[in-house]
Amino acid sequence: MENTLTLLQESLDAAFKPKSIAIIGASNGARLGGTEMRLLLESGYDGQIYPVNPKEEIIQGHKSYASIRDIPHEVDRASVIVPAKVVPQVIKECAEKGVKVVQIYSAGFSEMGGDGERLEQEMVTTAREHNMRIIGPNCIGTYCPSSGLNFTKGASTISGNIAFVSQSGGIAFDMVSRGHITGIHFNKIISVGNCIDLDHADYLEYLADDEETEIIGFYIESVKNGKRFIDALKKAASKKKVVILKGGRTATGSQSVASHTGNVAGDYQVWEALFDQTGAISVKSIDKMLTVLLSLQKISPIESGKVAIVGNGGGATVLATDYCEEVNLELAELSNLSATSLDQLGVADGGRNTNPIDMPANQLAAEEGRLFGSVMKILAEDSEVGYILFHFNLVPIMNYMDLESIVQKMITELESIDRTKTNLVAVLRYNGEPEVEKIRYKAMKLLESQEIPTFKAIEEGLAGISVIANQSLKGGR
Amino acid sequence: MENTLTLLQESLDAAFKPKSIAIIGASNGARLGGTEMRLLLESGYDGQIYPVNPKEEIIQGHKSYASIRDIPHEVDRASVIVPAKVVPQVIKECAEKGVKVVQIYSAGFSEMGGDGERLEQEMVTTAREHNMRIIGPNCIGTYCPSSGLNFTKGASTISGNIAFVSQSGGIAFDMVSRGHITGIHFNKIISVGNCIDLDHADYLEYLADDEETEIIGFYIESVKNGKRFIDALKKAASKKKVVILKGGRTATGSQSVASHTGNVAGDYQVWEALFDQTGAISVKSIDKMLTVLLSLQKISPIESGKVAIVGNGGGATVLATDYCEEVNLELAELSNLSATSLDQLGVADGGRNTNPIDMPANQLAAEEGRLFGSVMKILAEDSEVGYILFHFNLVPIMNYMDLESIVQKMITELESIDRTKTNLVAVLRYNGEPEVEKIRYKAMKLLESQEIPTFKAIEEGLAGISVIANQSLKGGR
Repeated sequence: MENTLTLLQESLDAAFKPKSIAIIGASNGARLGGTEMRLLLESGYDGQIYPVNPKEEIIQGHKSYASIRDIPHEVDRASVIVPAKVVPQVIKECAEKGVKVVQIYSAGFSEMGGDGERLEQEMVTTAREHNMRIIGPNCIGTYCPSSGLNFTKGASTISGNIAFVSQSGGIAFDMVSRGHITGIHFNKIISVGNCIDLDHADYLEYLADDEETEIIGFYIESVKNGKRFIDALKKAASKKKVVILKGGRTATGSQSVASHTGNVAGDYQVWEALFDQTGAISVKSIDKMLTVLLSLQKISPIESGKVAIVGNGGGATVLATDYCEEVNLELAELSNLSATSLDQLGVADGGRNTNPIDMPANQLAAEEGRLFGSVMKILAEDSEVGYILFHFNLVPIMNYMDLESIVQKMITELESIDRTKTNLVAVLRYNGEPEVEKIRYKAMKLLESQEIPTFKAIEEGLAGISVIANQSLKGGR
Repeated sequence: MENTLTLLQESLDAAFKPKSIAIIGASNGARLGGTEMRLLLESGYDGQIYPVNPKEEIIQGHKSYASIRDIPHEVDRASVIVPAKVVPQVIKECAEKGVKVVQIYSAGFSEMGGDGERLEQEMVTTAREHNMRIIGPNCIGTYCPSSGLNFTKGASTISGNIAFVSQSGGIAFDMVSRGHITGIHFNKIISVGNCIDLDHADYLEYLADDEETEIIGFYIESVKNGKRFIDALKKAASKKKVVILKGGRTATGSQSVASHTGNVAGDYQVWEALFDQTGAISVKSIDKMLTVLLSLQKISPIESGKVAIVGNGGGATVLATDYCEEVNLELAELSNLSATSLDQLGVADGGRNTNPIDMPANQLAAEEGRLFGSVMKILAEDSEVGYILFHFNLVPIMNYMDLESIVQKMITELESIDRTKTNLVAVLRYNGEPEVEKIRYKAMKLLESQEIPTFKAIEEGLAGISVIANQSLKGGR
């Protein structure tokens, strides 16, 4: 067991932090082999790169090798981007070369039926004989900002405490792309494909011991060895937060899994029991996955788990309080001192408890945002308040003044708030107009620089707080 | 009864299609009285405008009157935007002048406690004596594109088959602003405020007979006369589609209603029973309201209510099929002819049923979008398929080619599809990056010009189809 784990660690270290990479199928062109190579160069990977392509002499400034056997140095990791029919031969060569881990990007194996499964088995046998591990096939690669691995342009270069494992390349891509904009920072994202060798249990085992990782996100459709997976999930969830999006929950979805990865999805009731038993958090959509990851990364549990809400829109405020009850959040009952102070500022009514506080656009914009700042400070100093959700409906504010400048001023007001006892959560509501979206985006980045997470809708922000507050009530889970 | 309805029709016609308007509290400034006047001029209102403000001689190019009594013409409608303490006197003058309906924008009455309720009662008594009706107080105005009434810049000028009644100014505003971007067209939106005279039952009665209106949206927090409301809702819902967002569903939300409008929200179970009994569609958030209104306006029921799904992202496709089952939608089983044709195009696997179809970004972009067009045509011609949801995850497509141009080409391919037997629904997934958002916005407008509704997430699009498909199954409900 100790030995297996060491081999696992060694091979996944080689996958995420390789000292040298061979890109088998690299090219100068625009297709995947060319793009992978380009991304590696652009993302600042500082290990050795060995392109392999018998048809080229130089690829993107690097000497190209006809075969991996011709590389006169050690190769830690190989990325295989060649037609399916060539892959088994390439795998054999990698294994003989002493490569620690290969990630097979190519599709066209068991998920396509036919001969695919037999070919997969042969490759695994070859790899095992040489202590080489296989990721994939049928995947889109690895993202690891600290070592310069990437599978798309424009991804974040900042490493965070979240690792994400995805049985779908598209969802791995969504995490890199949407995560970056949303302000979620990952340390690793891996597209695991058909899992012919390394499978979900292996990734969980590895990440359970990974020092960079506190939160593990998972998109999963099917597992081959249920018992091993359950053990690995129990272990991982006892040490880290694990969030799982299970594809193929329903009968129809389960059929759809078969054509996606060639596997059987399993009965969702069994999965639900497993989530309950291990404390893994289950989500049902990509949007909810992003909401939960952002919350786990940016909101910390506060002992007094109650919420104050402030922002523009009376109707939105009423709906927010409804939603609080639905997600099991309690509104803070403000102290008399807070109520009096709010009353003096003119945003409360005669000293009665006014949480949630409805501040119309003209009040938010008043005194260059300082009125809003004062309200936030009063709430943050109230010991009853654990979390403050503040929401701006951006479009009505535009009617009163220059939206970009006032939003920046309001956000700057938050700098002086003591964040040790209160968590701040922002909601920027907007209408989808490109001009407003541009301002929202800038505001989000400004909030991100203050470590304040931003959500698109009040319900989303409250759901995020609820994940944290209700966990802390249950003692860390 | 006949008389009451006639008076009601007359006064609400005067509210929505006034031949002349007095703006009491108009100004040259930037605050509400100035803005209302400016919007009226800019939105193309072609009736008579009479600004009333004793401190000015000319307001925005129009002669200003010291009092409504000084206007030497008939006044259909008055908009009252003056401090609360002056409102009762103004109402008295309006009533004596023979105004048909006033909308009181000013806040500071029963929702603030104190003397407010008594003042409201006095105003109602005065109005009733003169057959004048009151909308409000505490509201933000009226939107009616066909007559040039508006409460914000940049609203749509196109009239549609939806009327919206809102007990929250902010939510009325959201409907105008977000509806416009989303491609939802309203014929009337009214902010009804505290409903001291005209109340929800009146608006429902009026809209039940309104020829422009087929769909009625409603944000409601509380009603004063439950019996009358129930009767009006039954009548309206028997003739039109009614969609209700109820604020103050929960105990906490209900308290919050009290501070928003000064009323009691009522037990939500009673409301739920009422929705069941009348067939009104109930939603729980602003986002869902927009989803349902867009669907009711843009998707028509098709007898074969089954769905085909096509787009990029294998994981997203699996999750989409899960979601279908959750919202009670059936995936269409494609005919052998369709399956064979798809197979020949290279997007199906050996002729088996491949719905949903996972077309990776490079396939969507292939042949300048014509491959996608061919797939859509095959699906549209399959008699089993009632609705086609097509989804583009925009960011991965950018990796292959110029996103803006390819998306436009793909959308243009849809022009030749026979829409009599198949409904098309678009989902444009994106990451929130301003550059991508700009392209998404243009694509949405292009889709809108083809009467194809666009949703942000696959779940949203399927929820929209489900509203229509499951209604048609239940025979029109």
